[in-house]
Amino acid sequence: MSDGYRLDSPPADIASVSGFRVGVAACGLKGKGALDVGVLLCENDICAGTAVFTRNKVAAAPVRLSRPRAETGRLRAVVVNAGNANCCTGERGEADARDMAALAALCLGIEADVEGGRERVLVASTGVIGRLLDMDKVRAGIEAASKHALSDGDGNLAAAIMTTDLVEKRASASGTLGGRRFSVAGVAKGSGMIAPDMATMLAFLVTDAAVTPDCLRGMLPRVAERTFNRVTVDGDTSTNDTFCAIASGAAGNEPVRNASSEEGRVLEGALEAVAGELAKAIARDGEGAKHFIEVRVRGAATERDADLAARAIANSPLVKTAVYGADPNWGRILAAAGRSGAGLDDAKARVSLAGVIVFDRGEPVADLPPDLPRRLARPEVTIELDLGLGPGESLIWTCDLTEGYIEINARYHT
Amino acid sequence: MSDGYRLDSPPADIASVSGFRVGVAACGLKGKGALDVGVLLCENDICAGTAVFTRNKVAAAPVRLSRPRAETGRLRAVVVNAGNANCCTGERGEADARDMAALAALCLGIEADVEGGRERVLVASTGVIGRLLDMDKVRAGIEAASKHALSDGDGNLAAAIMTTDLVEKRASASGTLGGRRFSVAGVAKGSGMIAPDMATMLAFLVTDAAVTPDCLRGMLPRVAERTFNRVTVDGDTSTNDTFCAIASGAAGNEPVRNASSEEGRVLEGALEAVAGELAKAIARDGEGAKHFIEVRVRGAATERDADLAARAIANSPLVKTAVYGADPNWGRILAAAGRSGAGLDDAKARVSLAGVIVFDRGEPVADLPPDLPRRLARPEVTIELDLGLGPGESLIWTCDLTEGYIEINARYHT
Repeated sequence: MSDGYRLDSPPADIASVSGFRVGVAACGLKGKGALDVGVLLCENDICAGTAVFTRNKVAAAPVRLSRPRAETGRLRAVVVNAGNANCCTGERGEADARDMAALAALCLGIEADVEGGRERVLVASTGVIGRLLDMDKVRAGIEAASKHALSDGDGNLAAAIMTTDLVEKRASASGTLGGRRFSVAGVAKGSGMIAPDMATMLAFLVTDAAVTPDCLRGMLPRVAERTFNRVTVDGDTSTNDTFCAIASGAAGNEPVRNASSEEGRVLEGALEAVAGELAKAIARDGEGAKHFIEVRVRGAATERDADLAARAIANSPLVKTAVYGADPNWGRILAAAGRSGAGLDDAKARVSLAGVIVFDRGEPVADLPPDLPRRLARPEVTIELDLGLGPGESLIWTCDLTEGYIEINARYHT
Repeated sequence: MSDGYRLDSPPADIASVSGFRVGVAACGLKGKGALDVGVLLCENDICAGTAVFTRNKVAAAPVRLSRPRAETGRLRAVVVNAGNANCCTGERGEADARDMAALAALCLGIEADVEGGRERVLVASTGVIGRLLDMDKVRAGIEAASKHALSDGDGNLAAAIMTTDLVEKRASASGTLGGRRFSVAGVAKGSGMIAPDMATMLAFLVTDAAVTPDCLRGMLPRVAERTFNRVTVDGDTSTNDTFCAIASGAAGNEPVRNASSEEGRVLEGALEAVAGELAKAIARDGEGAKHFIEVRVRGAATERDADLAARAIANSPLVKTAVYGADPNWGRILAAAGRSGAGLDDAKARVSLAGVIVFDRGEPVADLPPDLPRRLARPEVTIELDLGLGPGESLIWTCDLTEGYIEINARYHT
């Protein structure tokens, strides 16, 4: 059987991937007995693990702690909490993040490893900003979650990391790599992209493929760029965004050393496919969203122009409210692109909505199909803009803007 | 009496300024008998008039027509309609804009002027994008409005240019210039900044001061930068934005030739004061707005950094919804500044809300005054961010984001 992969439907959970154990607990940060702490452990000490983080200049304590650890490419475990972002919490917050990692390393039995146990634990937090963690609760949660990981090991991490998310987000792919069966599975959370106090984007991917730390570290930023960095809900970027991947090597393939090799392309492709599904799930679950929107820009003078135009369209409150109202309002789309900084000449531009050309090279299309509003009322809408100027292309996923977003974000109190 | 000026309260109307005549009409573009066409005429042929326009690369036909005319500094009249933006309307739209100017010049009796009448008419339009003007209605409207201008001459231009605006926007100032009494008065419209199909920003200022075309042309971009360009409602920029000023010279002062002279500073200051009031009125009347928000950033490394941070805060849906909810959510403010591209170190930053410091150099302020939520519930809220890094400052006016904005923009159908 030749190397390759396909997405699984329904997706497998990360706890089912060879070489991983997951534990979760309800420690009271979210209240109402909801799961709010999780640990993820790779059983194999000889593993690769890395992460990419928010580019926001205000970065939470767990992000600051985890950045250099991820750089080594040798992450082995994750400890995560929901309900409190541990951001803008000063030195006490830094100490709390360190304590979370140390306690998880101790409870999971990796503290004494030759490689230096606690340094291989990534810490992630999501929730309210500017409030100190209740560490008594968090400690009890980490102990319980670690016990769960070491016993059953099948914890529901997708549930434990939710905040305003309405649905658990999972994706997985499986196939053949170097002649061996392998799989990639991931969980994610995020619904305002990115409401720093409620709705950070977190994603954790695991694979049983064997890959060197350096090779995995090279792949992850590219995968992030083509998946999670394609999503915008409200243009706000969290202080806590974290995307982590750990590879156990349990599949027994010859470790992938080169991302450009056939095996490298298969593994990176599978990681990207799973991350892409999770990214779309985040946009689909945007706060208050009624429509998932795919924005495709082509024909831009440059890639950068395409990206500027696509992001301006995807973040425009006017475009988002028009989609909510199922209105074929191409004027708002053109106007958003026109202010984006991208090169644009409306005499050369073409706009399509739900597959129907509505504006063609300087002129509105006169006779639109009568079912266009019905097509726009479907839960997934595609907006396409061809600038007719060059080879630049971009793709962005987003959602519409509804009263639900206002309600969630105005009613919320710090 | 020494030179100077002060804002008038209540404001005078533009029709009351010496040397100007205003006519309005209801031609049926807006329907329900609402005023939707206006003309503004300077009686004195030897006058100065100029304008600045949207920077959106998609510019409406009236903007394209008026740009070179404004460059001459010798605009003498304005013809404006509401209800249709005449944007993305191809060659027919260009011809319609030209016809509007020609007809206004003819009806107002300036067609035969030595300077070339119709070339001195600015055309402005606001309303739905991508639909051809009903020129039969528009022609009848221009004829009626011109007749009104030449008879009573006291038309309510503030009303005729409204679209989704809830209130008429007027401001005026008066004082002494070169020893003569003078006044500046203006009207504006705009409530989504800037919803291209409903809520373009238009502003028309008149003054009886005498000023040379070159001098006025130098002043207007600076005034725009310090007033209308400080406003954002939703970050969207219209295809039709137009800010025009005409000076009749009827005050009889020695014409102002140099913006740096004492007289130049007085006139530019009065123009800026009136434009500033109109700009704030636009933010206050933002679609669905419940709060006017003033964002002040200081201590930025550069002016540009200050502007990036202030605009990111002002356009953040999360900040806007927090203000709507009267929640002192400084985390969203810091996070918006953190993603803006501006240099930021939260250990040096300070955030104040409604005059109360809530975050101080890396740490949340523990004991906030119990009346802070009540202060935030007031109709005007100030957000201040001191980055503690340098001398850069910026000021932006905006409004909160409410269900009203969603309703106006989702219910609207093209």
